[in-house]
Amino acid sequence: MNSFKAILTPQSLLVLDFRGFGLERWLVLELAPQLASQSHSLPFEFRALEAILQHKVNTLQAQLNDVEPVLLDTLESLVDPKILSVDRSKLHVLLQNSKSLSELETDIKVFKDTLLKILDEEEIIEELCLTKWTDPRVFEESSLGIDHAEEMELLLENYYMQAEELANKTRELKGLIDDSESVVFINLDSHRNVMMRLNLQLAMGSFSLSLFGLIGVAFGMNLESSFEEDPRVFWLVTGFMFLGSGLIWRRLLSFLGRHLMPSVPPLIPQVWKRNMKASDIKAGIR
Amino acid sequence: MNSFKAILTPQSLLVLDFRGFGLERWLVLELAPQLASQSHSLPFEFRALEAILQHKVNTLQAQLNDVEPVLLDTLESLVDPKILSVDRSKLHVLLQNSKSLSELETDIKVFKDTLLKILDEEEIIEELCLTKWTDPRVFEESSLGIDHAEEMELLLENYYMQAEELANKTRELKGLIDDSESVVFINLDSHRNVMMRLNLQLAMGSFSLSLFGLIGVAFGMNLESSFEEDPRVFWLVTGFMFLGSGLIWRRLLSFLGRHLMPSVPPLIPQVWKRNMKASDIKAGIR
Amino acid sequence: MNSFKAILTPQSLLVLDFRGFGLERWLVLELAPQLASQSHSLPFEFRALEAILQHKVNTLQAQLNDVEPVLLDTLESLVDPKILSVDRSKLHVLLQNSKSLSELETDIKVFKDTLLKILDEEEIIEELCLTKWTDPRVFEESSLGIDHAEEMELLLENYYMQAEELANKTRELKGLIDDSESVVFINLDSHRNVMMRLNLQLAMGSFSLSLFGLIGVAFGMNLESSFEEDPRVFWLVTGFMFLGSGLIWRRLLSFLGRHLMPSVPPLIPQVWKRNMKASDIKAGIR
Amino acid sequence: MNSFKAILTPQSLLVLDFRGFGLERWLVLELAPQLASQSHSLPFEFRALEAILQHKVNTLQAQLNDVEPVLLDTLESLVDPKILSVDRSKLHVLLQNSKSLSELETDIKVFKDTLLKILDEEEIIEELCLTKWTDPRVFEESSLGIDHAEEMELLLENYYMQAEELANKTRELKGLIDDSESVVFINLDSHRNVMMRLNLQLAMGSFSLSLFGLIGVAFGMNLESSFEEDPRVFWLVTGFMFLGSGLIWRRLLSFLGRHLMPSVPPLIPQVWKRNMKASDIKAGIR
Amino acid sequence: MNSFKAILTPQSLLVLDFRGFGLERWLVLELAPQLASQSHSLPFEFRALEAILQHKVNTLQAQLNDVEPVLLDTLESLVDPKILSVDRSKLHVLLQNSKSLSELETDIKVFKDTLLKILDEEEIIEELCLTKWTDPRVFEESSLGIDHAEEMELLLENYYMQAEELANKTRELKGLIDDSESVVFINLDSHRNVMMRLNLQLAMGSFSLSLFGLIGVAFGMNLESSFEEDPRVFWLVTGFMFLGSGLIWRRLLSFLGRHLMPSVPPLIPQVWKRNMKASDIKAGIR
Repeated sequence: MNSFKAILTPQSLLVLDFRGFGLERWLVLELAPQLASQSHSLPFEFRALEAILQHKVNTLQAQLNDVEPVLLDTLESLVDPKILSVDRSKLHVLLQNSKSLSELETDIKVFKDTLLKILDEEEIIEELCLTKWTDPRVFEESSLGIDHAEEMELLLENYYMQAEELANKTRELKGLIDDSESVVFINLDSHRNVMMRLNLQLAMGSFSLSLFGLIGVAFGMNLESSFEEDPRVFWLVTGFMFLGSGLIWRRLLSFLGRHLMPSVPPLIPQVWKRNMKASDIKAGIR
Repeated sequence: MNSFKAILTPQSLLVLDFRGFGLERWLVLELAPQLASQSHSLPFEFRALEAILQHKVNTLQAQLNDVEPVLLDTLESLVDPKILSVDRSKLHVLLQNSKSLSELETDIKVFKDTLLKILDEEEIIEELCLTKWTDPRVFEESSLGIDHAEEMELLLENYYMQAEELANKTRELKGLIDDSESVVFINLDSHRNVMMRLNLQLAMGSFSLSLFGLIGVAFGMNLESSFEEDPRVFWLVTGFMFLGSGLIWRRLLSFLGRHLMPSVPPLIPQVWKRNMKASDIKAGIR
Repeated sequence: MNSFKAILTPQSLLVLDFRGFGLERWLVLELAPQLASQSHSLPFEFRALEAILQHKVNTLQAQLNDVEPVLLDTLESLVDPKILSVDRSKLHVLLQNSKSLSELETDIKVFKDTLLKILDEEEIIEELCLTKWTDPRVFEESSLGIDHAEEMELLLENYYMQAEELANKTRELKGLIDDSESVVFINLDSHRNVMMRLNLQLAMGSFSLSLFGLIGVAFGMNLESSFEEDPRVFWLVTGFMFLGSGLIWRRLLSFLGRHLMPSVPPLIPQVWKRNMKASDIKAGIR
Repeated sequence: MNSFKAILTPQSLLVLDFRGFGLERWLVLELAPQLASQSHSLPFEFRALEAILQHKVNTLQAQLNDVEPVLLDTLESLVDPKILSVDRSKLHVLLQNSKSLSELETDIKVFKDTLLKILDEEEIIEELCLTKWTDPRVFEESSLGIDHAEEMELLLENYYMQAEELANKTRELKGLIDDSESVVFINLDSHRNVMMRLNLQLAMGSFSLSLFGLIGVAFGMNLESSFEEDPRVFWLVTGFMFLGSGLIWRRLLSFLGRHLMPSVPPLIPQVWKRNMKASDIKAGIR
Repeated sequence: MNSFKAILTPQSLLVLDFRGFGLERWLVLELAPQLASQSHSLPFEFRALEAILQHKVNTLQAQLNDVEPVLLDTLESLVDPKILSVDRSKLHVLLQNSKSLSELETDIKVFKDTLLKILDEEEIIEELCLTKWTDPRVFEESSLGIDHAEEMELLLENYYMQAEELANKTRELKGLIDDSESVVFINLDSHRNVMMRLNLQLAMGSFSLSLFGLIGVAFGMNLESSFEEDPRVFWLVTGFMFLGSGLIWRRLLSFLGRHLMPSVPPLIPQVWKRNMKASDIKAGIR
């Protein structure tokens, strides 16, 4: 997330306008020795450019590495089928990482666009090969038979590929977030339906009890029903109340079971299967 | 999911840096005899490249073949109209396969991009025709009248087409997942509405029973209502309670029926139909 | 959904590798007389190519014509505002047709890409004009002053346009499916809210009845309340129970009405309107 | 939505194959006088082409003007925060206008593609400048110093820009529909949650009443509890029932309040804020 | 949001057709002194163009700065995990800002397209360098060794980059809105599930109370049960009622707990983890 301007000369690299502490440490601890080492046979400007691009790609990769495990952990705990309600702090973590991912995606896109613009214009690549202009000897030395511009193009293309890979990774992560959100929604909806069915079954039970309890309430009225003296009536009515509400509840439950199940499902899967086979033969004039 | 680097010479194929056991088996058991067979009249580098590309396409196809039937089975069981709540282990299977599909999509995209980049630059194609450079005789022999570069282009294009077809397939599968998820949501919502209506109807019944049960409770109070002695009052009040709550419930149910049905629907389908016909005449200056 | 390979010569059309019965019938009944007729002044290869492309476009159009009315009917019945829950067999029909539409979209895309690739390379178009190479006379005869390659380009472009139109149609249908699904969701949610409000109103009624029924239960206890002898108390308490629960219910309902209505809505539409006018003046440096 | 073919000659415009009445009126009432007027210094074919393109753009604009206000009104009434359930006839209006918008989008796209194809091929533009070929004098007269082809290009580009603007407008409208639908969903969900909380609060009340009502029922049994003679017990038990259920209800409500509120929210907004500032410094190597 | 036409000459800038007061102030207070200052070594037309483009970018940036903080505040308060229902006025603010963002996106897109079209055609850039045509001296003076067209291209590219950055910002904001809406939905759904479980637990309690209250109602009937005289029966039955309903409730609650938790969850996370590692090794032939 740090921008810097640098001036490349065949012998030196002037880094302008750097800010932030991490960058300074990188300049001193990593960039300097990397450029000083003479192990590479490549001209100086190649090594400098490679170091800068490598640093940029590393930074992007590090950001992705920061975001990815947190995101995967959060998503994993969100799609956990055991949960009935979602831990809201997890949602905040998800939202922030999703935001970081978007910003990272933009950074990678900008980096890729910049590389692509350079790759598209051969002149700029030529101009980047500073040594070629100042020191034509280097060109002749090269035993590989490829000239500088091609070498530079390969170098840039290599980093473009790495950025592309990072972009693919972020796109996959974004897709995973979307898919996980769908799964979370289905999970929550599914739980809700299960709870609603239980609720409905209980409501049916309560209704049955109320219905037959009304008989008891009726007999509880201080009104003369002419059954008061018969001791068997108490047991009869009480038994009727309990058995009746039990039976009504059972009928309601079996009605619910039938009601929630459509009548003609066996035909559909076959149509689907047939459809699948047909698509296998599919081709075209091409 | 395995990358390898290979160096092609007109006579031999050096495969560098292979990893994994499946690949080794492929190298020994399939690649070697394929390259050794002299049945093809094509130069060696063509056959080697074809073998490698064919292996890559086969690998991608195999991955798709792994994912596709599991996905279709899972989706089929998810959109099953009978289910009230979704089997959560199915959701996990769906999520994982959807993830594998994204990764496969990325692999196919990378493969396609690589082929496309080669196809876009004629020079690279020329360079790939190694035999042409070392053994000009081969070129003259060719009875078909097409030169090497064109032959190479056709070969690459052929595999590009196959990768394109795989990409189309994965895109269709992704679309099918999205559509199925919508259907799952509509299914779950629909079930919920059915259950909610049943719940509401029961709540109406319970309300009616409570309302008229209050009469019974009133007469059950230890207070003097001056009706205590009349035996007909018991039956009157009891009958009123049951009939009254039944009637009130019926009115509430018919109110619910009317309430959930809007008043002016017959006009709308016609507008829609008219709209359809109008769009048939549609064209443009073009 | 049938692929075939064909070899065109200036005088004959060899169709290789045809499969399926519909295609055979087409070859014998339609293609043969079409090619045999001498009414066209165009060379043979033009007529053959036109017949094949026309057949392909017709097949795609026929597939679209199969899917479209079923889809529109299904969508129309799904978005019907009267329905409380969705007919699940309709959803299956929708899902299958949506799947067919995706496959059709892929076919059209492949067909378009193939035509586009030919149109992009002028050489291939030149090569397609077989008569030109074998019979230069035809070229001179042409009174229109356009040469063969241009004629061929126009022919291919014409079919490209037709495929484009089919692609537009499928895209519109896909959009219509998405929009309809949103409407179905809003419909179901809306129904649910209406039912939930009714449920809540009933729950308020039941609560009021329970609350005042408790008074009746209290007086129904076999405990001495010193009011037992006063005949007016019965009517007083009974009246209090019914009136009280009625009043409480009313208050709860009016509380619900106020609760579900936010306090400052009149300001918002005006802001919106103003926003609209401002956007009319919008333009840009351009 | 009307297609026509026209043949342009330097002196006349033959309109073939026009259908529909609106078009006829346009031809007679507007096109004829427009072409007859000699006020323009431009050649005839420019004026004719301009008239046709202007008519096409006007038609598209008129269609957009038809759809836009209805859509905005419908959306405004749908996102109205006061509504608990959505007016289903509004949804149908929305669906139809959304469909018209898709069709309009396709028309604009086709129109743009046609113009773009002409703009991409300089030859076609040259050929469109008929006067140039027949009357070279016109070219010399032109005081502006721009030749015909450039003039034609500017004319076509101008209409391309207008079509682009219409396309932008339709895309914005589509986005507005999507956003509004999300808001409608959040609105409906939000209402539902409010109602569900009220329902839960009432259920808590009813539960408390049932629990303490059970005491009353117990004392209402025709069983000897030895408290029958003590007049204070009636008031004690009645008071306990009412106070007890009131207290339990209060505890349940406060439990609900605590349950629906997570414990560690104050930390999160700060993290967010910090995140925002960090993104301001963001840049890139570029 | 203001368009203006301007005519550039090497010495003066004629601004035509300006509207609105803000623009006039800008013209007088900012543009005039900026152009008058001789500190720049660049020719006049460069400075004029730069001033205009800078003004346009500033306007767009200002609009983004207006929208962004309001949007972020609104989103932050919407995704607040504490809220049970969404503040509807916030939704309206969100909808309007989202609309403004779309309009801003369109403006930026139009601005970018215009710049891109100029950048794509080298001739137009050449023509923009007015001084070059009239005053060839300027060209020679330039010590930097870059000619005018390149200078102009850099200037335009610079503003294109700034517009691109604004476009990235708006796209990120749009993505943030989408993500936040998902989080809001999950939040609301999650709250609803929590409330529904509480509701279900209460319904279980009420059901248990009703079931055992029925015993009390039965004994409250004016029917002879032969237990009337035994004082222990009162305590026995009352105790049974309370304990029984308590026990049944507990069993129902533990049943609910088991019912909402699937049986085989421990296997799934491991599969996921393994999947993650496998994807790290992923590469391709490339």
